[in-house]
Amino acid sequence: MNRENLTEETINLHRAFRGKIEVASKVPLNTGTDLSLVYTPGVADICRAIAEDPKEADSLTSKGNMVAIVTDGTAVLGLGDIGPKAALPVMEGKSLLFKKFVGIDAFPLCLDTKNTEEIIKIIKGLAPTFSGINLEDISAPRCFEIEERLKEELDIPVFHDDQHGTAIVVLAGLINALKIVNKTKKASKIVINGAGAAGIAIADLLLEAGFEDVTLVSLEGVVTEGADWMNSRQASMAKRTNLHKVTGHLGDVIHESDIFIGVSAAGVLSKAHVKSMNQDPIIFSLANPVPEIYPEDALEADAAVVGTGRSDYPNQVNNLLAFPGIFKGALNKRVRDITVDMKIAAAEAIAKVVTEEELSPEYVIPSALNHKVATSVTRAVEQLVESEAECFVKS
Amino acid sequence: MNRENLTEETINLHRAFRGKIEVASKVPLNTGTDLSLVYTPGVADICRAIAEDPKEADSLTSKGNMVAIVTDGTAVLGLGDIGPKAALPVMEGKSLLFKKFVGIDAFPLCLDTKNTEEIIKIIKGLAPTFSGINLEDISAPRCFEIEERLKEELDIPVFHDDQHGTAIVVLAGLINALKIVNKTKKASKIVINGAGAAGIAIADLLLEAGFEDVTLVSLEGVVTEGADWMNSRQASMAKRTNLHKVTGHLGDVIHESDIFIGVSAAGVLSKAHVKSMNQDPIIFSLANPVPEIYPEDALEADAAVVGTGRSDYPNQVNNLLAFPGIFKGALNKRVRDITVDMKIAAAEAIAKVVTEEELSPEYVIPSALNHKVATSVTRAVEQLVESEAECFVKS
Repeated sequence: MNRENLTEETINLHRAFRGKIEVASKVPLNTGTDLSLVYTPGVADICRAIAEDPKEADSLTSKGNMVAIVTDGTAVLGLGDIGPKAALPVMEGKSLLFKKFVGIDAFPLCLDTKNTEEIIKIIKGLAPTFSGINLEDISAPRCFEIEERLKEELDIPVFHDDQHGTAIVVLAGLINALKIVNKTKKASKIVINGAGAAGIAIADLLLEAGFEDVTLVSLEGVVTEGADWMNSRQASMAKRTNLHKVTGHLGDVIHESDIFIGVSAAGVLSKAHVKSMNQDPIIFSLANPVPEIYPEDALEADAAVVGTGRSDYPNQVNNLLAFPGIFKGALNKRVRDITVDMKIAAAEAIAKVVTEEELSPEYVIPSALNHKVATSVTRAVEQLVESEAECFVKS
Repeated sequence: MNRENLTEETINLHRAFRGKIEVASKVPLNTGTDLSLVYTPGVADICRAIAEDPKEADSLTSKGNMVAIVTDGTAVLGLGDIGPKAALPVMEGKSLLFKKFVGIDAFPLCLDTKNTEEIIKIIKGLAPTFSGINLEDISAPRCFEIEERLKEELDIPVFHDDQHGTAIVVLAGLINALKIVNKTKKASKIVINGAGAAGIAIADLLLEAGFEDVTLVSLEGVVTEGADWMNSRQASMAKRTNLHKVTGHLGDVIHESDIFIGVSAAGVLSKAHVKSMNQDPIIFSLANPVPEIYPEDALEADAAVVGTGRSDYPNQVNNLLAFPGIFKGALNKRVRDITVDMKIAAAEAIAKVVTEEELSPEYVIPSALNHKVATSVTRAVEQLVESEAECFVKS
């Protein structure tokens, strides 16, 4: 389908159905008896049961399977700060994916404020209806504080998908790509171009997962201790990255690196950049729709493995591989928090869906539509929780 | 079904389905092409269209048909302040009714705060996702300020159903009951027992609709100018009610009245009270599950028409007769506010569903399950908006 046809068809579809989600009934409601069971007077017994034991809300109401997808519309796709109403079509799409892939009910809430404290207050106020909060498309650095505070102050999992979903899938892709090029995590020098929410989350997860040599680059330059343009999160990452204390820009750090991860802007990585990297470089150029370098160009410059954010090239880094299973596992086990260990377990599960026989430079990341992935990720998260519970009992 | 069986069956039902609502897809999502239409990259065109013209959100997203059912769980059924989680089963039930009767998607939001300012802020923050706000089971007097402020500050309709839904159905019932007893609005002396959210809203709507002699009674006594126990809303009603400046309690005002409306507590109206009223008294005893007086007792004391809040007696005053059509009409016409005139038009439409031939003391209010009602109310609201628009053009 070409771009123009896609535009017309997508607008027609949205207009015909008037959006994509509905609030539907799971129970019969046809007779007066049905009404007395699902509403008054019968419903009072359900209310009483939950008032006595609030945990019962997970079993007796839709809360147990309900996630809020919350945005303020400030960092939507590549469109930026388009506001809450214009963000709604993306959140509705996300809701469909939650339902389709793991059967979770997810409701979009697009907030009419960009104030960090107000957003935190609103989400805390809403929490009783939900068993998880998926933060979406909130711009950095506010997204960091909002997520951190909510993780501390709420007793249900909070997960900013733009940060952690992307990070998990990147880690999954790297686990498999390293097998292709026969390199280790420890020996690989990584450059991440883009030091916003996604870049920082990727750096953080890679370090947690065993990578050691990570350098973050932003438009302002290399993230390095003492740079005066950094936000607090970048400053904190500067302490854990850029081992060689390089200053300057992308061109100053890309040479003799092994892995390039772009979460930045169209066309910023040249063939010459790729040629200056170590042998068999791995390139994940994730800017959308136009990547930092097109795969054909990266391959011409002798890249060994190339991934993008696009569905029309091999190795698509798509959050859809991570968030459904992560939330499903977390909800099934009713965990209070989605931990770093869960994220790493999820990445390993995604990587493992690609068998040794299937593994190739064009197939280090499974297809976003592969339903096996969500099941594997769910199971991985569940098993991690089970084994931790076991350790806790033993210790 | 007896009470014990009902309890068991309602708990089994809620546990088996794990609540009553789900967030479901309205569009196909099976292929990669489907995904590119409902999610990336196609969805970006929908975002752009709405960013350019935010009104398009009504046509291109689920917002146009989406209502929030918001509570803080402080005045749930007869159970009182049971908290947000325990209130959720009622809100889910309400969501089913919105969908079943008028096809509106309604999502329950149970808030973890009782602070008036916080509730207002949260609802204002959430507004971009919704085309209407149904406030529910929020205790007085906070519910008054919350509704008033939101009506002023939001550009979508806000409707506290416990106040106005009940008031509309009571007015509908009285319109028909007066035909039975052959009395007029002007000549009828009304006593409303209960001066909380519902009682005050009923008094207000009856006065707006042409009744003149209304007296409100609370547990503390008759609402009257100068009483020192009144909240601001009661004080303001005191200026428009109690024409005869009576002080004291129910027993001091009930004699020689024509209409009793109870939104108070079990058993507070005696047969002697009814006997002390004018000939052919109309009794709406709405306390639930045990009314102010049981219909058989009221009839024994020569009541002409009796209504309750229960489905197992004739003339059930059930909000279900009002809110679906009110919201449907408001959403269809995309009005900014649900006005007094709309409420009166809705009451007249409900009353008219009972034909002259059908009208009897046992049938002044149509059945809550009569689907004709929602259609009639919707049409009445629409016609009012149309005729007002016409007047506006003419003037």
